[in-house]
Amino acid sequence: MRHMLFASAAVLAFAGASSAKAEEGMWTYDNFPIARANQTLGTNIDQAWLDRVRLSSVKFGGCSAGVISGEGLVMTNNHCVATCVANLSTPQVQYAETGFTPKSREEELKCPGGSAEILTDITDVTARVQKAGEGLDGQAFTQAREAEAGRIETEACGSDPKIRCQVVSLYRGGQFKLYKFRKYSDVRLAWAPEDRAATFGGDLDNFSFPRFAIDAAFIRLYEDGKPAATPTHFTWNPNKPTEGEPVFVTGNPGSTQRLLTQSQLMTIRDVVLPMDQLIASELRGRLIRYSEEGEDQAFIAMDPIVGVENTYKRGLGRMRALTDAAFMAKKAEAEADFRARAAGGQTDPWTTLEAVQPLARELYAPMALLEGGTGLGTTSVAGGSSLFNWARTLVRGAQERAKPSDQRLPEFADSRLPGVQSGLFAERPTYPALEQIRLEWWLSKTREWLTVDSPYVRTLLGKESPEGLSARLIEGTQLADPAVRRALWEGGLPAVQASTDPLIQYALAIDADARAVRAQWDNTVKAPTDRASEQLAAARFAVYGDAVYPDATGTLRLTYGRVEGTDVPGQRIPAFTTFAGLWDRATGAEPFNVAPKLLAAKDRIDPNAVMNMAVSSDTIGGSSGSPAVNAKGEIIGANFDSTVLTQRNAYGYDRNVNRSVIVTTQAVTTALRDVYGMDHLIQELGVAPKAAPRRARR
Amino acid sequence: MRHMLFASAAVLAFAGASSAKAEEGMWTYDNFPIARANQTLGTNIDQAWLDRVRLSSVKFGGCSAGVISGEGLVMTNNHCVATCVANLSTPQVQYAETGFTPKSREEELKCPGGSAEILTDITDVTARVQKAGEGLDGQAFTQAREAEAGRIETEACGSDPKIRCQVVSLYRGGQFKLYKFRKYSDVRLAWAPEDRAATFGGDLDNFSFPRFAIDAAFIRLYEDGKPAATPTHFTWNPNKPTEGEPVFVTGNPGSTQRLLTQSQLMTIRDVVLPMDQLIASELRGRLIRYSEEGEDQAFIAMDPIVGVENTYKRGLGRMRALTDAAFMAKKAEAEADFRARAAGGQTDPWTTLEAVQPLARELYAPMALLEGGTGLGTTSVAGGSSLFNWARTLVRGAQERAKPSDQRLPEFADSRLPGVQSGLFAERPTYPALEQIRLEWWLSKTREWLTVDSPYVRTLLGKESPEGLSARLIEGTQLADPAVRRALWEGGLPAVQASTDPLIQYALAIDADARAVRAQWDNTVKAPTDRASEQLAAARFAVYGDAVYPDATGTLRLTYGRVEGTDVPGQRIPAFTTFAGLWDRATGAEPFNVAPKLLAAKDRIDPNAVMNMAVSSDTIGGSSGSPAVNAKGEIIGANFDSTVLTQRNAYGYDRNVNRSVIVTTQAVTTALRDVYGMDHLIQELGVAPKAAPRRARR
Repeated sequence: MRHMLFASAAVLAFAGASSAKAEEGMWTYDNFPIARANQTLGTNIDQAWLDRVRLSSVKFGGCSAGVISGEGLVMTNNHCVATCVANLSTPQVQYAETGFTPKSREEELKCPGGSAEILTDITDVTARVQKAGEGLDGQAFTQAREAEAGRIETEACGSDPKIRCQVVSLYRGGQFKLYKFRKYSDVRLAWAPEDRAATFGGDLDNFSFPRFAIDAAFIRLYEDGKPAATPTHFTWNPNKPTEGEPVFVTGNPGSTQRLLTQSQLMTIRDVVLPMDQLIASELRGRLIRYSEEGEDQAFIAMDPIVGVENTYKRGLGRMRALTDAAFMAKKAEAEADFRARAAGGQTDPWTTLEAVQPLARELYAPMALLEGGTGLGTTSVAGGSSLFNWARTLVRGAQERAKPSDQRLPEFADSRLPGVQSGLFAERPTYPALEQIRLEWWLSKTREWLTVDSPYVRTLLGKESPEGLSARLIEGTQLADPAVRRALWEGGLPAVQASTDPLIQYALAIDADARAVRAQWDNTVKAPTDRASEQLAAARFAVYGDAVYPDATGTLRLTYGRVEGTDVPGQRIPAFTTFAGLWDRATGAEPFNVAPKLLAAKDRIDPNAVMNMAVSSDTIGGSSGSPAVNAKGEIIGANFDSTVLTQRNAYGYDRNVNRSVIVTTQAVTTALRDVYGMDHLIQELGVAPKAAPRRARR
Repeated sequence: MRHMLFASAAVLAFAGASSAKAEEGMWTYDNFPIARANQTLGTNIDQAWLDRVRLSSVKFGGCSAGVISGEGLVMTNNHCVATCVANLSTPQVQYAETGFTPKSREEELKCPGGSAEILTDITDVTARVQKAGEGLDGQAFTQAREAEAGRIETEACGSDPKIRCQVVSLYRGGQFKLYKFRKYSDVRLAWAPEDRAATFGGDLDNFSFPRFAIDAAFIRLYEDGKPAATPTHFTWNPNKPTEGEPVFVTGNPGSTQRLLTQSQLMTIRDVVLPMDQLIASELRGRLIRYSEEGEDQAFIAMDPIVGVENTYKRGLGRMRALTDAAFMAKKAEAEADFRARAAGGQTDPWTTLEAVQPLARELYAPMALLEGGTGLGTTSVAGGSSLFNWARTLVRGAQERAKPSDQRLPEFADSRLPGVQSGLFAERPTYPALEQIRLEWWLSKTREWLTVDSPYVRTLLGKESPEGLSARLIEGTQLADPAVRRALWEGGLPAVQASTDPLIQYALAIDADARAVRAQWDNTVKAPTDRASEQLAAARFAVYGDAVYPDATGTLRLTYGRVEGTDVPGQRIPAFTTFAGLWDRATGAEPFNVAPKLLAAKDRIDPNAVMNMAVSSDTIGGSSGSPAVNAKGEIIGANFDSTVLTQRNAYGYDRNVNRSVIVTTQAVTTALRDVYGMDHLIQELGVAPKAAPRRARR
């Protein structure tokens, strides 16, 4: 029986490139296959169910979350609030060590720069955006469509700070939708467990199952200084989940590349992933050594190391997928099938895309390193240095705001300025040593990958070394002070040009090169890719109808599956883990040490309570924090991870392999009630306040 | 004209897999294509010329070198003596900074553990070795052939410490030859320039051309405490080389993989190189950060960083080759041609090798990390920790010496023990911090790649962390003391088993696992690969006769080409660089700062003297230090590098791309005479002692 299931699922596994079946698909809410889902799962959800779930789903930074009370309480993952926790901490008060456990709402603390939003409306604007690009090519094509998107956003949202509008590209340009959000700019931390309770096993257990992590945290939406009223919310279900039960996962999966052609995937395999991974690995080494230099250094480096390791491990899974001959053969078959069915059309977008690849391969490194935003990989400008990125935002923001909105770089269109400002003015700490490590590493890797004789590198370094230049810039800059950033932003171009801040001067000096690389990329890679992708999307609709779902783009999706284990090479993945399993796995040595407060509560905790569960839903990075919802619309967990093998999900869904890893509401209830004494939250969730009865062990 | 040449050369480029043409080939001295070389180059070398060149060629550690006087003077690369220089230095006396410039032979210093050898005889022993393996498979096959090789070596060399015998496998088992060497165990450093004079441009200019590096150094062979008499030697030619002139390069290229099949190459592309490169990149990051912690740290980390960066950059070039669609298509064509011609034989070694690959892919990580010696990649046990490797040698040496020679692991056969001992007893410094970085990194990467749930990892770590365990082992061990190592070696198994040294105890505790992995590898990967490769070799001889050369194996080869530039994508590579070019390229910032003594000599140096030259000979890592010889048999330079694009040389020769980078004897003469005042060496080389006339600049 198992074998039969396996065989049939294998055939379905790559439908992503054509039409989706069974549990595959990260569906938009306006094209969710209600009938198919009900048939597959034996449920009976309807449009009203979908609307309630959508209005209870929250986007929080790059993560997902769900409203769980009428007073703005929201559950997400602990790793989604890690930066907030770090920003609220100091070397003296480290909430990652202790957990953040306010005893009342008054003690909830605002996450610097944090904001959250709920998707309220979807409108089709495909015709308008596509029309704007008609007859154009190269950067003019890109620019015209972006400008039209900016106009649509401004028209729809005006300057109301409580709403945000975003034109979303779906099916790689096949559709454009206007998404309208209710926005909350005051987000406060309401509870976070000890970091180790959420990260038991650290990087070793990351992207794996069985798993024993309470990777959950609560935030609260505020408006006008008070908890926001959120009448539509999930009902908290603190009970043990059932193996085989249907689960819906609602969230914002970040990015998939399932609709890419074979030639595009080869560019990712041969060029993008190797560079991204190799340089990330060096940064990881630098940060690890830095963290060993002392306690302060360990504190400062913790959050960055977790970030680098997470991205890196995901990349490893993707490298494995793209070099898995069987997996790739199925991708190739699916493409051949599509191509055969689409034959007879006037264009051959596959050939166009193949012709773009040599340029994409050549330009990936300079574009990723100097400008970012390739949409292909993870390498970012300045190694993620906050100070440099603020400097660039100030410089470009000043330059761009001097132009009419529709002639600006799209990220500075009027409709996007509130988001730019909230990032720029956020009161969060920076650490000079960390900033210098990032900048030095970035300069050094840029010199290495573009070569020392590149004109770009000459501009970047002049006669200085990466070590000397990064030290000079970080020592001299005042941009760590939010007031300085605000003054420069408000002072506009004259203030920026008159600034003697070395980082502002540096961002000014290297900006022309970065813009030139971007123009070259847009003209020779992005624009032809976008046009060909639009043709592919049209062909796909023609061949497969609307039984296809778009690639993930960081926008709200609904996916579904069951609580279910699986067999993967060399390993049985169970459906559940329990607290008893945690006690078994603990060695006492980091990262397999149980968090102290959690350990102290051992006798109060039901050893059979389920900590984490595996679900066959179709999720990917960005789905972190996604509410896991049962057929009644109750929240039963928060998605927080998947497995290394599941990383192939970027390129295709494979039901035999792919598992979402979800922390259960039962585990969170246990933590709140039996470990951290968060009685006011337990009450707010409507859970009985008494502790679980003590049990004799064994 | 250029286009025509390019096209025809491209056709020849992959002959490596079949029969070699033009300048391709790393030829053994007993099968050198004299007639073809003379015809191609317009020279008239003969067997006597070959014998003289061979007897003037030296193997020095993993490098090559050439005898340049009758009194044991030998030129190699500075980077080949870098470890010797580091071992002779202390944080107070840093010869890398100052250069090593003894004013007489009496001041020459012995390189700890250094030895050198000259190939005197070659005998065919193919029949004997192949017969030993007949009818066997798995580890028995491997073991029987290795044992026979050990017997042959012992029979031929006895226990004479001045000769060494080695059975060399050529054509991946197609031939076995007994190589007999004259061995010198007392090698002294006679001159080394300032490190920066040899490494101008550092890692950035490494594997590139144009180049401005005096990467040369002199050692001297001693016997019985006196300079060795070396009547056969190269004549020193201090003159400017001529563009287009024929050049022979004689040395010990380390390893090529040109005879591997497509399926084997895919394993390297998908599994071996990614793991090797990714983990090396992290070590690089750890070492870079460590080197920035202080001056002592910078001194300690210098040599290791250079080593890691060199290996890593070479790996990058190889990754690019294996993902270059055009390059790989030609390799595939050559294989198809060979396979078609070989059809009709009884076996299909290609299919056998393809069937081995899933196992090779699965076992590469455990084999490389726990045991080493995969023959495929660069990852080594314990991250290259000297202390750990000594511990393992002591443990295994004791265990193995308790058995008859032909039942031991082959590296402990009687004929190999002198080499083992000389490495073990060498008086060279170790640095605890560096040792710990290596060990910690290795433990951490092994845990990551094999997973925390691997039984091997459980043995490796127990309940400890990589950080804690590595600290405990390095703090407690006494193995840094050569006398301790000698006592343990001489005490044999009882001494080792009774030792309380934590590193000895640790090496004992983890040894069974490492041996088990090795047995599995030998049985399921190595033995079937060796057998199939032997069949392939037989087929290759049958199809192409002896117009094929074997893969490089670190044994002496002769290759040839011309002093010649080339055009590669985006760049013109010239034939020469001069000192004038060095002055132009210098910025003053590391690593583009001219070494102080070299800079001080600027006015004494002829700006038109040639520093480095590009030669179309077929070389690879291990060819470092190889004498570049003209048609008259005079030495005109020392090979020290190639370019990143040339790294495809591991898989196939491409005349349009491949260039050896060679430091000229003119540059070395200039350095000795005009910079470092090495008058006694200038005299020994027979060069006029006067400095070049001063020239008015501009």
